[in-house]
Amino acid sequence: MRWFALGLLLCLTPPPLAFAQDTPPTSADIIASAPDDAWRTLDPSNTVYLRLPDGGVVIELAPRFAPAHVANIKAMVQQGFFDDGRVIRSQDNYVAQWATRAFPDDVEEPAILTTPLDREFEVNATDQPFAALPDADAYAPEAGFVDGFAAARESETSTMWMTHCYGVVGVGRSTDPDSGNGSQLYAVTGHAPRHLDRNMTMIGRVVAGMEHLSTLPRGTGRLGFYETPEEQAIISSAHVGNDLAPDARLQIEVMRTDSQAFRDYVMARRSRTEAFFVRPAGGIDVCNISVPTRPRSD
Amino acid sequence: MRWFALGLLLCLTPPPLAFAQDTPPTSADIIASAPDDAWRTLDPSNTVYLRLPDGGVVIELAPRFAPAHVANIKAMVQQGFFDDGRVIRSQDNYVAQWATRAFPDDVEEPAILTTPLDREFEVNATDQPFAALPDADAYAPEAGFVDGFAAARESETSTMWMTHCYGVVGVGRSTDPDSGNGSQLYAVTGHAPRHLDRNMTMIGRVVAGMEHLSTLPRGTGRLGFYETPEEQAIISSAHVGNDLAPDARLQIEVMRTDSQAFRDYVMARRSRTEAFFVRPAGGIDVCNISVPTRPRSD
Repeated sequence: MRWFALGLLLCLTPPPLAFAQDTPPTSADIIASAPDDAWRTLDPSNTVYLRLPDGGVVIELAPRFAPAHVANIKAMVQQGFFDDGRVIRSQDNYVAQWATRAFPDDVEEPAILTTPLDREFEVNATDQPFAALPDADAYAPEAGFVDGFAAARESETSTMWMTHCYGVVGVGRSTDPDSGNGSQLYAVTGHAPRHLDRNMTMIGRVVAGMEHLSTLPRGTGRLGFYETPEEQAIISSAHVGNDLAPDARLQIEVMRTDSQAFRDYVMARRSRTEAFFVRPAGGIDVCNISVPTRPRSD
Repeated sequence: MRWFALGLLLCLTPPPLAFAQDTPPTSADIIASAPDDAWRTLDPSNTVYLRLPDGGVVIELAPRFAPAHVANIKAMVQQGFFDDGRVIRSQDNYVAQWATRAFPDDVEEPAILTTPLDREFEVNATDQPFAALPDADAYAPEAGFVDGFAAARESETSTMWMTHCYGVVGVGRSTDPDSGNGSQLYAVTGHAPRHLDRNMTMIGRVVAGMEHLSTLPRGTGRLGFYETPEEQAIISSAHVGNDLAPDARLQIEVMRTDSQAFRDYVMARRSRTEAFFVRPAGGIDVCNISVPTRPRSD
């Protein structure tokens, strides 16, 4: 029965690099042949590194979508408030949520942790580099990508916003939409909860180490909150990338979502030509597209 | 900062049961007030129980979509071939995959484990109880529910098929579309990989214990396969529900997806009226709908 172990494996095996005559390139072909100018490095000043018990989580920040929150989160990280933070919640097929470190009841928390910020749920879409997908979306007139971030756009109001795809990071808040400030963050660990779009401030996406959040034991309290502090995973340290030595940073390049290579990649993912697929989909959901990465070449 | 801990929590807190005048009911209201005839119990003859190290996984089978594979899987379970099975793969944001027990190299495997079945990728949609959603879908002309299973439909060909939503269970195969038989199964543990729709035989969905699959450590081999047998979680036993004592079965009722209550529930999830939401979505993705359950009442 060992041949079965191949199973789903085959569907993603990269084919040989040279394209056969008349065979459209697969997504693996396109990634392998994408020119150097289709790739970018992560901006270390907009990258956050969290150290969890089982490994590191790297978040690419999205100042274009939430400038005030991103600035506040970077300040909290740089002032050490996420060191000794805790993952307080893990709800299956929804989110993992973490917080800055706790203070004793008799110690007043610094203002940066308690002062709420105004919501940043959407931004003006005018003159933004939005790469639109051709497919229908149940939640928005248009879906696509901006700077590597999955997003949606509404022409009527000229607004755009990040979409709640797997691995996206948002700001916890209470019922008041202007009550968050980034001292609690969550990452989506399940199917995209797109109903949260335009209801939450989104500040980035996990680009490495997502498995260290997604495999955390689920909390047994309401909505996946942990019931005891002992269950909470410890964030032993947090850094902004440019406070780390260059060789301690994540060494990857990310495909530019405004490149021809990315457009070709999306088209190849919409209609897969790998032999495994007897019926290519001919369409794609914005949250079913992973932006390609490759090892950093320099 | 403790008030922040409420954060996302509030968005799902059930409101009081009596509806305020002029306030449309929330999904929690609808679940609480759904009449008894809007609920069904699981059919024990089409329910499979797997025992994993951290707890049980319960799968509702879908004979309407894959009669030959479901019959084969039930026979494999009842003949004990999934006892001492192994989870062989866990790929982040994709699938967990498991297999019947391994045989020594010098022992011939029983024919039931090696004989392939013809694909059951789609079925005739004529006269099927398809509850269609009103929203656009990137992968199919129509999405909706049949017997509690998320599905899609194409009128032109009068076909329907299960959609690859979180928790759905499918049959592993090699490149040959007629090479599977149910001796390897996978469950979706991430964002819906809908490009697999109509390319795989889908046999059911996990109705309890999904966290015991979704939190498994990710495999470090290609495509999330485990590299050593020691990493593979053991399936200590597997049973069809009617081979278990009634009180050992999962005691839940599932909302009928052909009921008015379910239609109301979906509408309430499309446009949420809970105070947390400043902008209800006004649309919904078929894979972002959880079919409600409640404790069994008898």
